[in-house]
Amino acid sequence: MSLKLKNAKRIEGLDSNMWVEFTKLAADPSVVNLGQGLPDISPPIYVKEELSKIAAIDGMNQYTRGFGHPSLVTALSCLYEKFYPNKIDANKEILVTVGAYGSLFSAIQGLIDEGDEVIIIMPFYDCYEPMVRMAGATPVFIPLRSKPVPGRQWSSSDWTLDPQELASKFSSKTKAIILNTPHNPTGKVYTKEELQVIADLCIKHDTLCISDEVYEWLVYTGNKHVKIATFPGMWERTITIGSAGKTFSVTGWKIGWSIGPSYLIKHLQTVQQNTLYTCATPLQEALAQAFWIDIKRMGDPECYFNSLPKELEAKRDRMVRLLGSVGLRPIVPDGGYFIIADVSLLGFCLTQVSAFSGFIFIRIAYISMNKKLSAIPVSAFCNSEAKLQFEKFVRFCFIKKDSTLDAAEEIIKAWKNQKP
Amino acid sequence: MSLKLKNAKRIEGLDSNMWVEFTKLAADPSVVNLGQGLPDISPPIYVKEELSKIAAIDGMNQYTRGFGHPSLVTALSCLYEKFYPNKIDANKEILVTVGAYGSLFSAIQGLIDEGDEVIIIMPFYDCYEPMVRMAGATPVFIPLRSKPVPGRQWSSSDWTLDPQELASKFSSKTKAIILNTPHNPTGKVYTKEELQVIADLCIKHDTLCISDEVYEWLVYTGNKHVKIATFPGMWERTITIGSAGKTFSVTGWKIGWSIGPSYLIKHLQTVQQNTLYTCATPLQEALAQAFWIDIKRMGDPECYFNSLPKELEAKRDRMVRLLGSVGLRPIVPDGGYFIIADVSLLGFCLTQVSAFSGFIFIRIAYISMNKKLSAIPVSAFCNSEAKLQFEKFVRFCFIKKDSTLDAAEEIIKAWKNQKP
Repeated sequence: MSLKLKNAKRIEGLDSNMWVEFTKLAADPSVVNLGQGLPDISPPIYVKEELSKIAAIDGMNQYTRGFGHPSLVTALSCLYEKFYPNKIDANKEILVTVGAYGSLFSAIQGLIDEGDEVIIIMPFYDCYEPMVRMAGATPVFIPLRSKPVPGRQWSSSDWTLDPQELASKFSSKTKAIILNTPHNPTGKVYTKEELQVIADLCIKHDTLCISDEVYEWLVYTGNKHVKIATFPGMWERTITIGSAGKTFSVTGWKIGWSIGPSYLIKHLQTVQQNTLYTCATPLQEALAQAFWIDIKRMGDPECYFNSLPKELEAKRDRMVRLLGSVGLRPIVPDGGYFIIADVSLLGFCLTQVSAFSGFIFIRIAYISMNKKLSAIPVSAFCNSEAKLQFEKFVRFCFIKKDSTLDAAEEIIKAWKNQKP
Repeated sequence: MSLKLKNAKRIEGLDSNMWVEFTKLAADPSVVNLGQGLPDISPPIYVKEELSKIAAIDGMNQYTRGFGHPSLVTALSCLYEKFYPNKIDANKEILVTVGAYGSLFSAIQGLIDEGDEVIIIMPFYDCYEPMVRMAGATPVFIPLRSKPVPGRQWSSSDWTLDPQELASKFSSKTKAIILNTPHNPTGKVYTKEELQVIADLCIKHDTLCISDEVYEWLVYTGNKHVKIATFPGMWERTITIGSAGKTFSVTGWKIGWSIGPSYLIKHLQTVQQNTLYTCATPLQEALAQAFWIDIKRMGDPECYFNSLPKELEAKRDRMVRLLGSVGLRPIVPDGGYFIIADVSLLGFCLTQVSAFSGFIFIRIAYISMNKKLSAIPVSAFCNSEAKLQFEKFVRFCFIKKDSTLDAAEEIIKAWKNQKP
């Protein structure tokens, strides 16, 4: 083929993508899908109703402000000011993007240069690495480390960064660190003390922090989500990323946002205006209306920011019991809507392992009933070196209807009886 | 400020944007806005109703296939196969994007490298230049040229490329040419003969063609939209871009698409999966349903692809008469929903000229009644060299309700009486 019909160098080797492949696998209707982080519970009724109403308004179907629909950025600034010591300028310190994915992209393209280094903590949400590479920068990886603690449940809080090891990853080339709390896939919720270690290093090395906090509302009893941008000296260097999809269980709306100081956000805005100009108006207006409903009742148990984690905590506990009951060792997540478990004891059950474009997908099959459960191996969230460390772990998504979890339970419990 | 808090080099100098600035200007409610290409007519009722219905379906609020919602790519392939000699593979030859803007971006990032040259025809939709620069490539400009023809209306078809001049712009470095037909801002609809000249040069120099055809349905009596991708040897090297916003008068939905051979589209897909992963599901499903309604009645006058251009042709004719009646010389557009006119005779009326971030905006004021009309100078669609050539032209958008055009008419007619 003609050389001119070739791809640009910046995307060389970045063509494989777990979710693209996973969607194909998950399309098999006989599979109980605990793979992709996709709710099958209903989103709040008022969120859907707002969109239905707004679709009928002519003006809401036309272009809006490029950096964020006015009513949405106003709602976001009002909401987040409750958590920051500083005011948040709705127009200059917020950018609305196409999902949190779009926020990550505009932050990385707007701030990261060729030759820069970006620290990524493993396991990591899979797009971090190709996004950094597409910017021509080098990812520098550091793993969370843990050993099972005898005599009690293994917890996501047992997975920690080694402060010395982390310090060794910073250099004069380090432009940014990507933080993710609550963490996907482990469910780790970084403590204030852990975040202080990261903040100190960012300040010492004059490094940006891209803080992916899309699961910010989903923290379970005994845990608290802390924003690193609220630490002294950190607002100045942090882009904090949120997601409507995770906040209101509408992943298909693809609206996210970046919050940070205007002199950083303006570079993300420049990327946005040269990539897609503006986000969908009706979705933004519906979200703004939904936010106002919940902003006005944030202390109430009915507020979705409170009711969803309560609903999910029961599902988490169910998954912990279920996985434990068949001899898998689950890591109890403190946040998020995933649970990872060591499935190495169940080698005989991993009957279908398929490799697609370099990614390994696992379907755990209950052979006698020909029922299948899909999950994602944690090695998909690691670079090649660390794949070994994490290959015995599998991630299950539990933001699912009880009937879906019932079906999963039936499959998983049957393993126990099938054990040799 | 710390060097590490600076922007990435790739966006250096790309921070000014006409639409960002224009939105601020247009926010003044006393201004009759014929500036931004934004319909104030109602979108088709079934388009809005489909979105209202779909918002209520739980699953339609969750992630869909990353490269395009299955029902939408199926509808698009069915629609466009009517115009191509070849079949169109819904999964491999179509990418659904965040607006046509997102299609342009993914095509340019996926296919254009640092050091490449990209031919851009002036005047041009303003994002072409910064997108090419963000990819590290060099835009090579060529103007459409015309002189008024005495004794008859000046037409957009009088604006042509000089074939010798165009040939001189191609070199071994030329990776692509960006074509836009029907053309914004002139309304030019390229003829088969004109497209053949471009196609011959593309084939001779092994050059890609990025064909922005967002106004494809909006062609007026006596004209026909022709797709350069249907020319022999051109499907192989063309990305054709369409827009839901322009097709169904819902610019705020921000859904567009790229169509081309799989070996090119796959690179756009790689960009998409590393920038935003997927587009909004409810909007894509609503669009698919709307497309099916109109695909089934494409021969009927009620089909929106036929009824909208008919509605707009009357508005175009009204604008031609109106602008002519006050001594402006309009260029009659053969397509699109803009009309440009030489306003140099009205120097005294350009009472408010504001410079924002390097862009000049014109508000033509009817001083005695303090009513204002906003429009966009065509120089905003040119590079700095060609600004002089086009500075006496102003672009008016006419996809507006009769009441909006009435208000514009009142202002414009008053100029005549105010003339010295």
